[in-house]
Order: sequence, then structure tokens, then C-alpha cells
Amino acid sequence: MQNDVTRFQRELQEFVRIPSVSSDPKRAHDVQRCAIWLAARLRKAGLTRVRLVHTPGHPVVYGEWLGAPGKPSVLIYGHYDVQPAEPLKDWKIPPFAAEIRNGYLHGRGASDDKGQLFTHIKALELLLNSRGRLPVNVKCLFEGEEEIGSPNLSTFLVRNRRALQADAAVLSDTRMLGPDQPALTYSLRGQLALEIELHGPSRDLHSGNFGGAVHDPLQALCEIVAKLHDTHGRIAIPGFYDRVLNWSDRERRYLAGTGPSDREILRETGAPSDWGERGYSIYERVTLRPSLAVTGLRGGHSGDGPKGVIPSVAVAKLSFRLVPNQRPNEIERLVRRFVTHIVPPTMRARITTQIRSNPALIDRRHPAMRAAARAYRRVFGSAPVWVRSGGSIPVVSEIECLFAIPTVLMGFASPGDNLHGPNEKFSLRNFERGILTSMAFLTELGRGQNITARHEQQTRQEAVA
Amino acid sequence: MQNDVTRFQRELQEFVRIPSVSSDPKRAHDVQRCAIWLAARLRKAGLTRVRLVHTPGHPVVYGEWLGAPGKPSVLIYGHYDVQPAEPLKDWKIPPFAAEIRNGYLHGRGASDDKGQLFTHIKALELLLNSRGRLPVNVKCLFEGEEEIGSPNLSTFLVRNRRALQADAAVLSDTRMLGPDQPALTYSLRGQLALEIELHGPSRDLHSGNFGGAVHDPLQALCEIVAKLHDTHGRIAIPGFYDRVLNWSDRERRYLAGTGPSDREILRETGAPSDWGERGYSIYERVTLRPSLAVTGLRGGHSGDGPKGVIPSVAVAKLSFRLVPNQRPNEIERLVRRFVTHIVPPTMRARITTQIRSNPALIDRRHPAMRAAARAYRRVFGSAPVWVRSGGSIPVVSEIECLFAIPTVLMGFASPGDNLHGPNEKFSLRNFERGILTSMAFLTELGRGQNITARHEQQTRQEAVA
Repeated sequence: MQNDVTRFQRELQEFVRIPSVSSDPKRAHDVQRCAIWLAARLRKAGLTRVRLVHTPGHPVVYGEWLGAPGKPSVLIYGHYDVQPAEPLKDWKIPPFAAEIRNGYLHGRGASDDKGQLFTHIKALELLLNSRGRLPVNVKCLFEGEEEIGSPNLSTFLVRNRRALQADAAVLSDTRMLGPDQPALTYSLRGQLALEIELHGPSRDLHSGNFGGAVHDPLQALCEIVAKLHDTHGRIAIPGFYDRVLNWSDRERRYLAGTGPSDREILRETGAPSDWGERGYSIYERVTLRPSLAVTGLRGGHSGDGPKGVIPSVAVAKLSFRLVPNQRPNEIERLVRRFVTHIVPPTMRARITTQIRSNPALIDRRHPAMRAAARAYRRVFGSAPVWVRSGGSIPVVSEIECLFAIPTVLMGFASPGDNLHGPNEKFSLRNFERGILTSMAFLTELGRGQNITARHEQQTRQEAVA
Repeated sequence: MQNDVTRFQRELQEFVRIPSVSSDPKRAHDVQRCAIWLAARLRKAGLTRVRLVHTPGHPVVYGEWLGAPGKPSVLIYGHYDVQPAEPLKDWKIPPFAAEIRNGYLHGRGASDDKGQLFTHIKALELLLNSRGRLPVNVKCLFEGEEEIGSPNLSTFLVRNRRALQADAAVLSDTRMLGPDQPALTYSLRGQLALEIELHGPSRDLHSGNFGGAVHDPLQALCEIVAKLHDTHGRIAIPGFYDRVLNWSDRERRYLAGTGPSDREILRETGAPSDWGERGYSIYERVTLRPSLAVTGLRGGHSGDGPKGVIPSVAVAKLSFRLVPNQRPNEIERLVRRFVTHIVPPTMRARITTQIRSNPALIDRRHPAMRAAARAYRRVFGSAPVWVRSGGSIPVVSEIECLFAIPTVLMGFASPGDNLHGPNEKFSLRNFERGILTSMAFLTELGRGQNITARHEQQTRQEAVA
């Protein structure tokens, strides 16, 4: 396989070099180019009916192999778009250079999600090349809008509901616990991302001539943001915690026994001390408990040096992470009501919602989850730990809703991969083991007699359009 | 004079087209180019010993005419650097196009301070062309760092203290009260501009994986900024108001009688309502009373769309405007002490001071101030109103300190000129009247017998170096 691996790495470098930043309108062409590149790889792997499905935003890349009638069907989901790389000055290696150093491929998207997505494509390619067939039926769906909240994915899934029907889904966009310790994520937080835009003066004002006359939108914004948490690290929006599920002592003990310690998480952040809701471990705070992060502030002069200006507009970007049984729509109503209530009469506020995604919880006892666990054991030599993630993957709850199937979150990222931050990287050793694990997983699934019987009900496969 | 005026307007357009943004390191070459251009205009006007004096930053442009022994000497100060033009999208006409429309020259610096500075150069040119001499001795000093707090001006003034000695200074960088209502500013606020930089995690973190684990620097920054004012619009820093001078009822009545009404100021801001310290009119709040504006916030993702990040660093830019008898150094100590006190243990703070300037108060009865008032009356047909400005011009208190002379703030800007904001402009009618007023002022000064006797003590003029 060594020749293959070298080639696979080169291909992954090509993949990472395409700056498919979905949130940047100036990168739309690169996102498109990335989709075309990816479709070519699917064809090369031996998949059929490979196509770009256009959406109002970035295209979905689809391909399938349905040559195993009577066997289970697996939906392989991933995303080929990436987070913005800014601020560029923080990168030691340019984000789209895709250089390999010390066993890591460096670059934006190397780990999230290009490297992980690619493990499955290469697994399919190796299986089809060696045996001419796959142990299960496979439907690959790679979207280009995950990092902007998948605005067009629901429509695509609903429209192709019958064609996409499967017995389980698999997605590799999560982390292992350590270099040799695989993990299977069974819980994700949901998300509500929104922007508060405050409008004060009708134009930017001279801070000397007008300082003291009117409320500064930046100051008013800070005053509003400061009211979103109480002094105990809890979110101060009335009703916010009403639906938050309280977990059993047994589950909390399980987390304490399997999850990282406060010290470990804190070390990873490099922060001087932890912060947050009292009465919970840090691991619980980022998984069992909801949170609110201010992910951006904008207004006034952001460059170097001083500028004497009171800006007309100030913007805060907020990201709420939600847990069962919170619902983004309901939380959005609470947030809007509270913010509207505390906006001073000196300001006009506009709130724009950008992402709404449900939390997800996957049954650890599902046959597909067990197949994944066995696959990990075979390749890594150790059983995966069941973990909860604080992140959000909207597609998981969507797939649950639409198809009533679990998504196996088979992650190959490492804790130090720095997803979303500067200097993102992906371990090439994990890339290789990821390919082997995907192969083992598909093989295990193919052996399983009784994942569900749903595939047998499908007499004729519909085409994705 | 009509031919001259057309030529002068064309020259002013050239001046405004040079993007001499002193705060932008990428514009250093343009600032230098602007200085060279300006020196050429001084030579053309007939001044002598014209030169660029280099500083660690941008050069000072100097020129003089000392052919009137026994007559007073006037120091003409101005600045050829401009504020940044960002955000560019808010400009209806590009900021450095210097287009003339409807009697206004549009562009960054048109009014602040290029257009106003240029009135004096053209006044000198007209006087020297027509009479071959000036009614007074003149020393012109134009700096290129006013908009970044004049970091190198003090050194220049101190080094050339004897060569620059004069009987009065004049500076046109202030506003008239209305299109035909001139004003003489006799009071300026000082300034303390600083940045608070908060450092939390050692790197940007994923807001899902870490939301709830650590304090978000943007949130912590908002919490700190929100504590800088109390709920009554007063600055909440202990000791901040200790030295603020309380003005007599007589002075407050004078301000009420001559200054703009609350309604007028508010209309100009376009804000939904006013805001600030209770018990004072808005005009008092922006002139007699100190203030604090948040002039910029930076951190996280500031572009369009969401990005799930907890940034490592967050920055707030603050501008305190100070009044007699506050001193920037003392206020800086109070601010540092207070901020250090309220920074939570989750953050490390760094405070960087960028501008320190003293408030200034000029004696309305000084002969140079009276000469300016007469000059205005001759040209505009109405006496100037004595006004207080909320802005800061550090050089005024420096000149007072070093030379013990007043600076006549002979402003030709209009209330709608939008200094520091987008769509800055300068009235060409005021440009012309400004030239005439400067000529009349110099002539009035030349008639005065007794401004001070200091110029007679100078036996030999030193050269500026």
C-alpha cells in the first residue's frame, strides 16, 4: 500500500491547496473548483453517477456504488469547504501551501474536513481496486457549505429523501482523544449563531466634537454583551436553561471516567484559568451544558494606531451552543426578546440569525456504532472511547430526522490539529489509519445481518438530482 | 482675484489627491510626497528657508518670511496628514478623487486640514505678489503627524524653541458655526487615547469544542468596557472627575447664549436620542465636561458570515477627552489602575497609550484674538462667536507651554464637513473667504503696536533645523 499512500498524500495536498472558503464570496470560484476536483476523485475511485448538484449556494458533490443488493447501504457525508484562514499572520506555514512537515500535512481544512473526508474516498478506491466490489452499498454526499451552517443542505436532503435512504450514515469530522486513542462521538451540541447590529448616529462622528453627546454604539454593544452572562458564568437570558436536560449521576460518572480532566482541557486552551458555569467539570460544561461565545466584534477603527471616531454601527457575533432538549428556534425567540428588551433607547438594533442547528444524540448500542468500534479496534489496536463533543454538526440531527438512522462520527482528527484556528494540520499517520478504519468499517457493516431491513424495501433506486 | 481662485482650487485638489494617511505605514511614501509637494507651494508663495525637517516619523515642512523687523512674528501651524478614509464603501465620491461638486471640494483632508491650512499659504502668496512684502514676520510649520497624536512635534518645537519664537500662533483646523457665521475657538479638550488588549487562550479556539470552558476575550472585553461608565452616563473610574473645573454660572450662561442647542447638535449626529452626563446641556457635555468614547473594537471574525471561533486576543480602543484641569498623565494612571483592578483572573491585559494631550484655554482678550475677530468682521460682515470645541489639538497647549503665546484658532470648516467621517468636504466659498480673512488678520496684526515686545529681544534669528 506504500505507493498508494504517497499518491494519496499528494492528492490530499492538491485538495488542501484549493482555498474553498465557503463564507467568502470572493472564494466562490475556488469552492466550485474544489467541487469539480472532488468529483473527479470520486470517479477515479470507481463510484458511479458522480455529479455536482447545484444549489442556490455551493454545489453538493454526489457519487454512489450500489452493486451489493441485499447488503446495507451507507451514506458517507463530509464537507469540502473550509473555515476562513484569517488572521493570516498567525500561520507559520501559509494556510493553503499544504506543506508536509514532521508527519503532518499543514493547512486550512487539512483536518476539518478534507483530510478526514478523503479517508473514505481512498478506502472505497482501495476496496474497489482490489476486489472490484464493495461489501455494502455506498452513497457519498459531500457538501460545500458546512462551515456556513449548511443553508441549502436540508432542501437537498428532503428533495432526494428516497434516493439517499440508507441504513446508517458515517461522517469523519471529529477528534480522537490522543495520538493512538480513537473515539466515537455520540453527542453533539446544536448551535444558534446570530449577529447583533447596533445603529446609533446616522454617520461616523468625530470623537472629540461629539464625545459625551451621544451613546457610542461600541459602548452600547459592550453593555449589551456584558448582560448576556451573569457573574457566575451562566447565560442570563430568561428561560434559556428551561429545557436543558439534567443527566443522571451514572452518565456524569461515565463522562468523568472517560473524558479529559479539567487540567487537560485547560492546558490545551493555554488560558490562564478556566471560566464558566459552576458545579460542572469543564468537559461537562462543553458537552452537557449550553454555552455562549462572542465570536466577533466589529466597529470603529480596527487598524493600527488611534482614530478619533464614534462609529455609526457596531456588530457583535454570537454563537450559542445548545444541548438536548433545547431547540434553536425557541432559543432564538428568547434571545431576541431579551436583547430587544435591553437595547437602550439611544440605539436601534437588528438581529440576524445565521445558523440554527439541533443538538444530536446517537445510540451507542446501534449495530453501525458497534461495527465502527470493532473497526477501530482492528486498526488502532484499542477500543474507541465514547465521547461527547461540544461542537455542532447540523447534518447529524437532520439525518436522524429525515432517515431515522444514526450517524457514526468516526473522527480521525487529533487534539492539537487546531481546527478553525491558525496552523491547522492533519496527521498523515492518522490519514493512513483512517483509510484502513473506513475499509474495516464497511467490511464489518457488510457482515452484519441485521442493521435494519429497510434496504430490502427499496425495489428501485431513485437518482439524486 | 478670480483667476487666482481657480488656480488655488486646482492646487488644493492636487493636495487632497495625495493620500497622506499618517497612521498607515503603507502610506508613508505618500505622506513624504505630500510634504515635498507642500514645500514647493511654500517656495512658490515666496517664503524663504523652505525645507523638510526630518523626524523619526513624517517630516515637518517649514518656511518663513522675516522681512519686517520691528513687526510682530506669527507662527502659522497646520497639518498636511489626514485621517484614514476607511470604510471606503461609505464614500459617495472616492476619498482621494478630490472632485468639486456644488461648490464643495470632496475628499479626505479637504477640510481637516489641507483646505484650511492652504488658506494661509495662499494669503501669503497674494500679499507677497501684490505688495512684495508681508505686514508681519511669518514662520510656517506644517506637520505630518497630527492625526496620530504628533509624536515628534514636541521634540521639534523644543529643539527649535528660539528659532520658532513668535508673538502669536494661528491655526485653522476648527469649525464655523454656520455657513456665514464665523467662530473663534478659545477652548479645546485634551485627549488620552489608549488601547486595552486582552489575552485569554494562547490560540484561537473552536467555539463549539471550547465554548463554556474558558472566558472569551471578547466577552471579557465587553464586561470591562461596560464598567467604564455608570448608568448615569458618567465615567466610573475613581478619581476621574477630581480635577474637573466647575465653571461659573456666567460662563455657562454665555455658552447657552452663543452655542448650539441640544436639538441642533442632536440633529447633526442623526442619533435617535442624546446620551451622557446629567445636569449639562449637550454643548456643555462636549466642551466643559470630559468624555470617553470607544473608538474601535477588534477580535474574532469581523468579516461577513459566522465563524465558530473564540479568539485569543481582543482589543478596545478608547479615547478620553479631558478638560481643565485634568492632566493626561494623571488620568492615564487612574485608568490603568482601574482597568488592572477589574481585569478578571482569566485574562492578561496590556494597556498601550497612544495619545496624551493637554486641554487648552486661550484668553479671548489677547490682542491677536482681537485682531482675528476684526479680520473676520471685515471679510464675513459679522463678528465671530467665541466657541469651545470638544476636539483636541495638542499643539495648542504645547505652544502655550513653550512660547507663552496664544494660538488663534481661526477655523473655516463648516458643521457638515464631516471631519474624520466618510464624505468629508470643504466649502470653496469658505476657502476663498479664509484666504481673505488670513490676509486681513496678518494686516491687523501688523498694525498692532503692542502684541508683545518679545520680537524686539531677538537680535539674530536662528535657523530651524
